[in-house]
Amino acid sequence: MKHGRVVFEDRTLDVTEGQGGKVRLPDGREVAETEVQWLPPMAFGTIFVLGLNYADHAKEIAFNKAPEEPLVFLKGPNALQGHRGDTWRPADVGYMHFECELAVVIGKTCRNVPREQAYEVVAGYCTANDYAIRDYLENFYRPNLRVKNRDGATPIGPWFVDAADIPDPMNLRLRSWVNGELKQDGSTRDMVHDIPALIAHLSSFMTLNPGDVILTGTPDGVADSKVGDEIVTEVEGVGRLVNYIVGEPLASIPLNGSTVEPLNR
Amino acid sequence: MKHGRVVFEDRTLDVTEGQGGKVRLPDGREVAETEVQWLPPMAFGTIFVLGLNYADHAKEIAFNKAPEEPLVFLKGPNALQGHRGDTWRPADVGYMHFECELAVVIGKTCRNVPREQAYEVVAGYCTANDYAIRDYLENFYRPNLRVKNRDGATPIGPWFVDAADIPDPMNLRLRSWVNGELKQDGSTRDMVHDIPALIAHLSSFMTLNPGDVILTGTPDGVADSKVGDEIVTEVEGVGRLVNYIVGEPLASIPLNGSTVEPLNR
Repeated sequence: MKHGRVVFEDRTLDVTEGQGGKVRLPDGREVAETEVQWLPPMAFGTIFVLGLNYADHAKEIAFNKAPEEPLVFLKGPNALQGHRGDTWRPADVGYMHFECELAVVIGKTCRNVPREQAYEVVAGYCTANDYAIRDYLENFYRPNLRVKNRDGATPIGPWFVDAADIPDPMNLRLRSWVNGELKQDGSTRDMVHDIPALIAHLSSFMTLNPGDVILTGTPDGVADSKVGDEIVTEVEGVGRLVNYIVGEPLASIPLNGSTVEPLNR
Repeated sequence: MKHGRVVFEDRTLDVTEGQGGKVRLPDGREVAETEVQWLPPMAFGTIFVLGLNYADHAKEIAFNKAPEEPLVFLKGPNALQGHRGDTWRPADVGYMHFECELAVVIGKTCRNVPREQAYEVVAGYCTANDYAIRDYLENFYRPNLRVKNRDGATPIGPWFVDAADIPDPMNLRLRSWVNGELKQDGSTRDMVHDIPALIAHLSSFMTLNPGDVILTGTPDGVADSKVGDEIVTEVEGVGRLVNYIVGEPLASIPLNGSTVEPLNR
């Protein structure tokens, strides 16, 4: 089943996929996907992101070979954005690119998960687009927060898809289009460190919890994303995620789906 | 005022500091600080950590000068540990060291905060100890998750202290003791990027939210922390944080204060 979270008629609702790609509301009504405001499909916990996890992309950005240990960094929830939301391009940058990625959502609290049991802790999958601003990149292995952690620079969704619906997550086509033109066309089968390896690695030194999510990296074909562009990233069977590039306003930015919690006192 | 969170008589309680360093329970009783199990003093949001933010420590680890832009990385909540809790040292590492740090807790949702207004968004302060395992360090600028994000490797507390009680956070003594021997003795006045600079920098590209916390780096004097050691880190006026180094068990690790949320579906 596909699950999403939207704002409709001023209420935040947990929804599922209805007939013909429509959005089924909790009261049973079905509405077009363009009639709702999409949020990230759940409140995620720790957000892990892989760097250089496809050999062709690693080569594309001037490395001769992919790293032996997974290169993993973290994002804050401020970076997430919903389907059909905006991502802001700073006025003064020369190269900002999309990255179509399969996101793996953890479903159980776990530690020291053997490779053979890794799929037992997976709750499901999402499509993500992990924008990067190359201008700020000092280090390919561990990009700084200005490259990867900007507000709204990581669209995710529209759906969270139950693991049972994706029998072979290591054989999914990943594609990205800029204004309708296909730019990126790869497969999850080309990951350097596959899903079981990533779960075994991370859980070898830290506890993973339900709602934690691993963005598994991107294949080659990334391209500049300019103000006015419609960027579509799609993971086969998981979801087609639409995003719009807009110019950055001078002051504060209205966030679609940001987590703003009261100070817990 | 000083606020903490503890487990006492099987209940999780928000407490304050009582007479003579005692813990004042919500029902007014006061108990010794050794009679409670300490948790991190609140549920933190995004956890920012500074690398190389004291020139003497930067020099100590072989850099000639401190970086011009703040070096900031993120931690997951799994890394946090309470006062008087245990931190695990893996059996096969040669050098694991403590780092006494002032933690700055954000109190308001904010973006593009000018340096001059930075203290208006600070809710208060904690003492933190940001352990690092040097064996795993490939890159001083952005340590990998095995160095800095292990379960329980970042004690914080015992208290969260209201900002009003710390009139000059840029002039606080930082000290660390190993088994009673003073090893680290510095001052927040020696930060390369001070608190207003850090808040201005981070909020220039991302929204900060209440409960987000910035660990501001450590001065020189770090030392190896071995199984059996009692490590005390203290920030003047903020708190004296006690931690014990234990050997790592083979299987799962009981976490003191880990965030385990049900999958939000």
